[in-house]
Amino acid sequence: MTKIVTIGGGTGSFMLLSGLKKYPIELSAIVSMSDDGGSTGVLRDELGVLPPGDVRQCLVALSDASDELRAIMNYRFTEGGLKGQSFGNLFLSALEKTHKNFLEGVRTAMGILKVKGEVIPVTGSNAHLHMELRDGTFLEGEDIIDHAHFQEQGVKKLFFRERVKANPRAVGKILNADVVVIGPGDLYGSILSNLIVPEIAKAIRKTRAKIIYNANLTNKKGHTSRFSVDDYVDAIENTIGKGRIDFVTFNTKNPAEKLIQKYSHQEGKGFLVEFDEAKNPKRTYRLLRGDFLKDGAVKKVKGDALAHTRSFIRHDADKLAKAIMECVGVHSLCQTKVEMSGVHSLLTNN
Amino acid sequence: MTKIVTIGGGTGSFMLLSGLKKYPIELSAIVSMSDDGGSTGVLRDELGVLPPGDVRQCLVALSDASDELRAIMNYRFTEGGLKGQSFGNLFLSALEKTHKNFLEGVRTAMGILKVKGEVIPVTGSNAHLHMELRDGTFLEGEDIIDHAHFQEQGVKKLFFRERVKANPRAVGKILNADVVVIGPGDLYGSILSNLIVPEIAKAIRKTRAKIIYNANLTNKKGHTSRFSVDDYVDAIENTIGKGRIDFVTFNTKNPAEKLIQKYSHQEGKGFLVEFDEAKNPKRTYRLLRGDFLKDGAVKKVKGDALAHTRSFIRHDADKLAKAIMECVGVHSLCQTKVEMSGVHSLLTNN
Repeated sequence: MTKIVTIGGGTGSFMLLSGLKKYPIELSAIVSMSDDGGSTGVLRDELGVLPPGDVRQCLVALSDASDELRAIMNYRFTEGGLKGQSFGNLFLSALEKTHKNFLEGVRTAMGILKVKGEVIPVTGSNAHLHMELRDGTFLEGEDIIDHAHFQEQGVKKLFFRERVKANPRAVGKILNADVVVIGPGDLYGSILSNLIVPEIAKAIRKTRAKIIYNANLTNKKGHTSRFSVDDYVDAIENTIGKGRIDFVTFNTKNPAEKLIQKYSHQEGKGFLVEFDEAKNPKRTYRLLRGDFLKDGAVKKVKGDALAHTRSFIRHDADKLAKAIMECVGVHSLCQTKVEMSGVHSLLTNN
Repeated sequence: MTKIVTIGGGTGSFMLLSGLKKYPIELSAIVSMSDDGGSTGVLRDELGVLPPGDVRQCLVALSDASDELRAIMNYRFTEGGLKGQSFGNLFLSALEKTHKNFLEGVRTAMGILKVKGEVIPVTGSNAHLHMELRDGTFLEGEDIIDHAHFQEQGVKKLFFRERVKANPRAVGKILNADVVVIGPGDLYGSILSNLIVPEIAKAIRKTRAKIIYNANLTNKKGHTSRFSVDDYVDAIENTIGKGRIDFVTFNTKNPAEKLIQKYSHQEGKGFLVEFDEAKNPKRTYRLLRGDFLKDGAVKKVKGDALAHTRSFIRHDADKLAKAIMECVGVHSLCQTKVEMSGVHSLLTNN
């Protein structure tokens, strides 16, 4: 079976895994462990646990358990001292407390939630993400980085406060993968927070797997405004090695005018990630263009107290997964309209 | 299959069900819904949910899920704002919030926890237990009743603040049962809080099932000090009808001297429930005497923050279940040393 490893966190991984899980592949999801905001931040502070939020989303995406069990994993309490707290996060924290460590707890969670594939926290270390800006400012903690505007000052370095050791299972999966799929997701909080773990970057340099990067649909104000696909690729390849990315999926369908206005109002100009063929004739990756856009409005989920903070312009999990699977070479399973710059199958042509 | 219905709450039901679940019977556990203290009380107050604690214990007792899942259902957080909060209670409250009501949530929990048999909250009403004393004092709430000393004043009436409607499934199970097993458990908080729901008492009067009452091992200071078996039977039959109890299990083995000293220090004299053959020649129930005592010290469960409040003199689940099953007539399954005052099998002799 084709071995596919995803790297990311949060809603980006949730979306990607929801699409990929429908295919007969061996799927492993490596998940960022640097979140320290919201429900997760409260649990880290008060219970001294590792951050459960991103792992929870990946577990739910890959869960074959009942709809009811999956639903409460995403439920957030709306009243009292528990207001905003995610039940699924409490579940993972209770498992951590009743097991040797978080990684063992996650393994039990995979069993309870009947996870198809494997969810692999990128590290079992208590990792605190910091950022140094070119003007000498330090941003300490992912939540602070997430809410800061630092693009004008410029990023000098993204790093962990402590020595962070990679989860050996993550390293092993990357080394043995056929394909590694990075993103989509927040560049600093979900993508680079995985890749700056030294053994992870090293494994990506070393593996013979093909690397696919799913370009984000939109840029983030104060972080990546006016970024093009090449800017993201550069930022990632600064960590995993120049020319390491083999394919990039890129959405070419325009979002509805209503959504564009909403974003440009909130995020300013340059919020859509662009691709300029002429600008960089030396690029080494191949672009997989296609319609990867989720149609219609994003549905509000009952009990999702954070719905107002979520994106309106989103990837369609099935469209993106189809494009990836076609690229991987599982032709028989899907029919997509992806233009692949002459490449029809990654695995069969290499 | 023999249909056995248990009525109780808390640790008493947990113990009883843990023993009975090993037999090939149709088991239904009717559970008190009046708790308003501790973790349950916080959730009732803050989230406006029904009390999950007693239901949780019965679900865990009857669960055939993995040890890990059963373990976290009993886990209590020990730090921060969640200190003392039971994960299993949060689970049931989250299910209540994501379902039509608590009863529907419990049905989903039974599936997730692979419950053998059925756990049936005695009511789906938001029930507040009150007590009127003979001196005119009112005790409002189970937790207040639980911690009050009112035996000297005397109890005039135990009642619910509101009209409490029985769960129709509880009524149906009692009417169709072969055997109804009441207790052991706190007389007011776990036993009578079920029986004062009008349709429950009515169903017990009406059913052709045999009624077994498991006498408590110890009395409760300020509630039932110096109570004998007959005093408990009287209190219960005041609600379900004189002469309605067919059998009473009664432990005849003396607890270890060390434990007796611990109790008599805390609870004063008369803490062991006694049976005086001569005192009441007109009693209509048959006594099932035997060794129902748990040997050795009660093990402390990791994460059980309330361990210090739990009893040290406890029933042995297997011994008690064996006695009940022998009484019920499932001879082939067990060998007990119960003296049954000439009755060898309840079902075959009637």
